[in-house]
Amino acid sequence: MRLRVGIIGAGPSGLAQLRAFEAARTLGGEMPDITCFEKQSEWGGQWNYSWRTGLDRRGEPVHGSMYRHLWSNGPKECLEFADYTFDEHFGRPISSFPPRAVLFDYIKGRVEKSDVRKYVQFNTVARWVDYSDATGEFTVIVEDLTNGITTSHVFDRLVVASGHFSTPNVPHFEGIETFPGTLLHAHDFRGAEALAGKNVLLVGSSYSAEDIGMQAYKMGAGSVTFSYRTAPMGFAWPEGVRERPLVTQFEGSTTHFSDGSQSDFDAVILCTGYQHKFPFLPTGLALHTPNVLYPENLYKGVLWHDNPRLTYLGMQDQYFTFNMFDAQAWFARDVILGLIPVPTAAERLDDMQTWLARQNTIDSHFDDVDFQTDYLRELIAATDYPAFDLDRVADLFKQWLKDKENNILGYRDDTHTSVMTGTEASPHHTPWLRAMDDSLDRFLGAR
Amino acid sequence: MRLRVGIIGAGPSGLAQLRAFEAARTLGGEMPDITCFEKQSEWGGQWNYSWRTGLDRRGEPVHGSMYRHLWSNGPKECLEFADYTFDEHFGRPISSFPPRAVLFDYIKGRVEKSDVRKYVQFNTVARWVDYSDATGEFTVIVEDLTNGITTSHVFDRLVVASGHFSTPNVPHFEGIETFPGTLLHAHDFRGAEALAGKNVLLVGSSYSAEDIGMQAYKMGAGSVTFSYRTAPMGFAWPEGVRERPLVTQFEGSTTHFSDGSQSDFDAVILCTGYQHKFPFLPTGLALHTPNVLYPENLYKGVLWHDNPRLTYLGMQDQYFTFNMFDAQAWFARDVILGLIPVPTAAERLDDMQTWLARQNTIDSHFDDVDFQTDYLRELIAATDYPAFDLDRVADLFKQWLKDKENNILGYRDDTHTSVMTGTEASPHHTPWLRAMDDSLDRFLGAR
Repeated sequence: MRLRVGIIGAGPSGLAQLRAFEAARTLGGEMPDITCFEKQSEWGGQWNYSWRTGLDRRGEPVHGSMYRHLWSNGPKECLEFADYTFDEHFGRPISSFPPRAVLFDYIKGRVEKSDVRKYVQFNTVARWVDYSDATGEFTVIVEDLTNGITTSHVFDRLVVASGHFSTPNVPHFEGIETFPGTLLHAHDFRGAEALAGKNVLLVGSSYSAEDIGMQAYKMGAGSVTFSYRTAPMGFAWPEGVRERPLVTQFEGSTTHFSDGSQSDFDAVILCTGYQHKFPFLPTGLALHTPNVLYPENLYKGVLWHDNPRLTYLGMQDQYFTFNMFDAQAWFARDVILGLIPVPTAAERLDDMQTWLARQNTIDSHFDDVDFQTDYLRELIAATDYPAFDLDRVADLFKQWLKDKENNILGYRDDTHTSVMTGTEASPHHTPWLRAMDDSLDRFLGAR
Repeated sequence: MRLRVGIIGAGPSGLAQLRAFEAARTLGGEMPDITCFEKQSEWGGQWNYSWRTGLDRRGEPVHGSMYRHLWSNGPKECLEFADYTFDEHFGRPISSFPPRAVLFDYIKGRVEKSDVRKYVQFNTVARWVDYSDATGEFTVIVEDLTNGITTSHVFDRLVVASGHFSTPNVPHFEGIETFPGTLLHAHDFRGAEALAGKNVLLVGSSYSAEDIGMQAYKMGAGSVTFSYRTAPMGFAWPEGVRERPLVTQFEGSTTHFSDGSQSDFDAVILCTGYQHKFPFLPTGLALHTPNVLYPENLYKGVLWHDNPRLTYLGMQDQYFTFNMFDAQAWFARDVILGLIPVPTAAERLDDMQTWLARQNTIDSHFDDVDFQTDYLRELIAATDYPAFDLDRVADLFKQWLKDKENNILGYRDDTHTSVMTGTEASPHHTPWLRAMDDSLDRFLGAR
């Protein structure tokens, strides 16, 4: 009997896994029996935009956290697939920071070309997973959301690729229940148009806060205030944008900060991060981790230490994204196919400890980049995923960090050069701050 | 071994079940081994208000759909417990339409007096249920949300009391993804203060639409528009409130209706109902039903026809509420204790068919009331739940329906007489339309 492999999720990570298996198949390898369960009616994960918030049409938690006018906040040259370039997809240079629809189109192009749709059961949510030590099998119970029918499936290997930017982390703040204005987590934010003229508070100081704050500015917010826990972001903010320390209390429309100041706001957006959440996994299989570059208990960042038949993809905090998922998926594939042996538990622990120790020494974003670059280097060296100049990508990340420092409203107008093809990005026809149509057509069309 | 009974949910229905067993225990009956799992950190279900929307602190779907300034929309005299009166709880007459916090206090009063908290495992969500035909046992896997630990529990009987006003039904409307304003389902509505001066569209024509529309009016909305599918509500709306037929399309801020008219709105609230959703139940045990007075496959509205060891409480569309859950819980208790025999499948089918046939003949709200009154009459006659004059409650419902017709903004200022105690409600110190504090203290305090 062929090895049975179950994959949960058909977003960028799950699709990377399908592509990895398909790449091996075209080289003549023997294929496992693959089934991928996808909750949504289309693939692409976060990139498959939904206007919905909270619970979806079927009453399942909405997967997506993206919004209208979301443009890539990192250069596309840092996430380019090594085996499917932007040149191959678009046939001509495009700019470095495309809107969501353009990147979604790019992701879809690769998998449509790969004939992997046949592996995916859409509208199918994983309800419960059980692992038997006796048989070494995973039993996965799924529900077909179109008809409510639940079925049971048995696998020899399980790949969890359900993402970790879907379950909001929402702390309580004293008095927040008295705030009478618009109040939501970044996960449920879908656009800043209605914030025009409003005084907006973003609680948080990471990517969501930074970008949603700039969306509000772009759409004409009356003022934009960030509240940070540890340290201000410190960008060269435009007028009307400011940073305050932590919120201590809400009192109706009035918000109190830990420096004793207070302000009134019309809208509060909680940019307080996401939880790793796997409601379909039992104790012993479920990953519990904060959002870090190297979660504990994942050998090479992918194999579940307590049971290496279980793989997690994409569970790291991310600089590298699509090509990191690829590196992980190619590695996991070769482990599953037996091409890469699983070391002993002691060897795995030792390897993980080395990375975890290094993680503890990180104290800058540049260190982050170097850490994840070295992580990818190791993974890519172990498989036939096309090698590329990782140090040049690391340099690109560092340049991008500096560009953001210099001009938080303008860095998306910068252009970069592909590490894969050497193609120079073309400047976009409209500066980001004045671009008010985020569609694929508008992006690809003339000025 | 004592019979093991699992109860999922400690809202009004689950608490009714606990109270029912406790009432039998105090009469000297032998008690089953009872475990009730409650996802929230407190009991009360919907009445346990949360400011949160979408997903809760633990990443679980938020149970509650209530909002600031929610006052009972039916007379408290229609939902009074027969075994714990408002007089017993408050010690003096109160008005007929109390705010949420007052009814929550009343519900809690009964169960606090009953010493049933010991049966409840809080912060514990049901993940998966499996039933074995061979053993007649239910295996319930739950997760302790405080630590992520999953455990397995075996029961001889299972009571599902998880409610059906928590999972929003959200249809798609053409172009809705282009609407730039505030957009949410009634489930995520928490207050109308921010709608002051706004043009608000409520999609729907049932209780949520009616009440949230009047909340918006009360808080100073610029205009309130209802969109109905079948028929307008037809209340005597105040100025600035109107009804339109079904939305056919959104186009940015502009909404098109099926009569060819169009309007611009700042906020859209989808009052499009709720789904019965049981993600923890497999095919064969999960109830699938629209919101009706008599769901199919539930004998006496509670026993799952395909497996009468499974009980559902409160799954009906509701006129009667708390005392209907009581009538159901007392009936289910006596079935579980073997005091009421379960008829043969043919007899159950026959009984259900009679009710379903009558349900098909309903064509007015008065018919609804009479149907549910007769349903309660049959249930209550079968147990020792304290009898009360159901026809007087039915008359009260009909009076209330007329009062709403006459004055949608003023019916909550009317007072009614308790069927249980004969106590006349006292007029509230402040008319509903001018009452801007919905707290228990304010309600019980002097003018």
